[in-house]
Amino acid sequence: MNKKAIAVLAASVFLLSACQPAEVTNETETVTEETETTSQLSNEYYSAIITDNAYQTSLNRGITLGLNSTINLKAFETGLMNLSQEHFSTDSHYFQEGQYIDSGTTNSWLGRVSEENPDGLNPEDNGNNEPDERNPIYLDSFLEQNYMVQNGDGFELGGISIGLAMNSVDYYTKKAYGSSFETKISQEEILAEGKAMADKIVQRLRETEGIGDVPIAIGIFEQSTEDNLAGGVYIAESVSENGSTSFTNWETINQKKVIFPASGEESNELSSFENFKAEIENFFPNLSGVTAEALYVDDQIVEMRLSINTQFYGESEIVAFTQHVAEKASSFLVPNIPIEITIGSINGTESFLAREAGETEFYSHIFD
Amino acid sequence: MNKKAIAVLAASVFLLSACQPAEVTNETETVTEETETTSQLSNEYYSAIITDNAYQTSLNRGITLGLNSTINLKAFETGLMNLSQEHFSTDSHYFQEGQYIDSGTTNSWLGRVSEENPDGLNPEDNGNNEPDERNPIYLDSFLEQNYMVQNGDGFELGGISIGLAMNSVDYYTKKAYGSSFETKISQEEILAEGKAMADKIVQRLRETEGIGDVPIAIGIFEQSTEDNLAGGVYIAESVSENGSTSFTNWETINQKKVIFPASGEESNELSSFENFKAEIENFFPNLSGVTAEALYVDDQIVEMRLSINTQFYGESEIVAFTQHVAEKASSFLVPNIPIEITIGSINGTESFLAREAGETEFYSHIFD
Repeated sequence: MNKKAIAVLAASVFLLSACQPAEVTNETETVTEETETTSQLSNEYYSAIITDNAYQTSLNRGITLGLNSTINLKAFETGLMNLSQEHFSTDSHYFQEGQYIDSGTTNSWLGRVSEENPDGLNPEDNGNNEPDERNPIYLDSFLEQNYMVQNGDGFELGGISIGLAMNSVDYYTKKAYGSSFETKISQEEILAEGKAMADKIVQRLRETEGIGDVPIAIGIFEQSTEDNLAGGVYIAESVSENGSTSFTNWETINQKKVIFPASGEESNELSSFENFKAEIENFFPNLSGVTAEALYVDDQIVEMRLSINTQFYGESEIVAFTQHVAEKASSFLVPNIPIEITIGSINGTESFLAREAGETEFYSHIFD
Repeated sequence: MNKKAIAVLAASVFLLSACQPAEVTNETETVTEETETTSQLSNEYYSAIITDNAYQTSLNRGITLGLNSTINLKAFETGLMNLSQEHFSTDSHYFQEGQYIDSGTTNSWLGRVSEENPDGLNPEDNGNNEPDERNPIYLDSFLEQNYMVQNGDGFELGGISIGLAMNSVDYYTKKAYGSSFETKISQEEILAEGKAMADKIVQRLRETEGIGDVPIAIGIFEQSTEDNLAGGVYIAESVSENGSTSFTNWETINQKKVIFPASGEESNELSSFENFKAEIENFFPNLSGVTAEALYVDDQIVEMRLSINTQFYGESEIVAFTQHVAEKASSFLVPNIPIEITIGSINGTESFLAREAGETEFYSHIFD
């Protein structure tokens, strides 16, 4: 960062963010780091802590890339941020990527337990290769998030959230580069295994330096299968408070993601989607594809994300189509829930529409 | 469209759009078509006319795909819609793709004039292959837009806009699949050739059935070269009124598009961009790429479009980065002009921020 930038920064950060110079001592010198926080786009997001204009990436950065799909990754991470808001308010807490469990530790925890890997959370290899007789890998990925609070001139740990991404199907091969086989895992097994792992994890965290007695929230995430276009959902959560080394009061979460058009599921929202789709798909002589992912909580639809793909032959077609979609979305789609609609072509996202939580109108933007 | 959709449609279109049943007679039967218009997202866009829920595509649909780049296509089309607003108000006029000049006619106009192609607007082949001695192709593409007005129960033509996309470099080969050569064309030549073509075109349009005496606006567009990341700009415009068969009062348009970071161009907006870039690019341990296209009118910056690309290792990184960018954009970038910022990764557009014309705050959206 050049000096001019620092000068302008000093004038500007007070407008939008907290600015905290903090003393940091290391072995050879004492340096003053500039700790600040990002702005907060809305109270559904946390401000994040940044130090000297750089983001503190997770100690196990990249671990979640191992999930079945990008959509599972997003659902796993944003889902844990959403769960965390019940325990750590976005007004008083600042987000920081996990700084306690590093890559080596994570990899040993995600491995099978064995003499060489005593900390493995997945069951030992029982020597059997058959889908229904082997011990599957239950825990596929692990996420740590830190929630910080202000303390005088600096920030200190206010809470930790842990996400456990569990397999509903464990994909495996019998030999390297061999065919893929599947072990199916029931939701009962996922919950039983996940809860047992959660207790082991909280015991280990309580012994980790710097964590102490802060609240530790945990969520069990059932990731969707590789061929599923919808992302997974959290199915249970709990919190360990006052330095407790176990989770006692587990709460069940009743969430479901449904891809529209769906076969065999009759609902008002499906028929409203079908009507919307009929209005849209024949706008051009070439067909436009329309799909949606709907999120249900306690069997109520709470959110929809639509993706429309078509072939455009010019910019004026994009403008007209976006305006047409805006009108039909207002008329036909479920009212009063957040809806995101992206309109894309082979060139990428061409325009998008969104009705955010608590709003009645769609915002729209056409990319030039 | 199914019957249920029609019923809902009847209840809804009056809210957002004009609905005009129109009698259309063809050789074998009389059918009642449902003519309606799309909603209008803002008064910078035209409502478009749609018939029986389908868009009337251009008679020469796809012609503009022949331009040097997608960014030229967008600049050519939206630029003509913007010019048109000076003559045909978005309040009283409705957009329709060109319905008078078909593909065959367009192709003959875009060809070289010859005995077989007497209507060609490009010069004859002089038999010379050398870059500076041959006759280049001046006119690369052609765009017709119709601006409709309401008339009783239906719509009628209220005006036509024509765009002429001219080459500043004509790329050619000396033999099929041979190396590419270039003939450079000066802006003076572009203007002289474009204006001469404009007069020929308006004479032909006045003789085309259904056009009559409506105003015909025309714009000369200088498309950017193949290796230019910025799109082209309109450099001159005129309008033919009261059935006139020529364009007399040409107006020069002083527009320029500049890509940032730019070498050799010192300006306040470039240094503000450089400061913004410095704040952004080191947020993650891996570098983030930041580029921008700035539009200048009469040497004043009037619009910016930024594109930020980085590698994300998780959704929480996207949230934090977007919030960081929002804050730095407000602090560092040129105030009071429309700005669009897209943040992308290898997975496509991850989030975006936009400050629309006349607004002071950035809207932001993170794609889930």
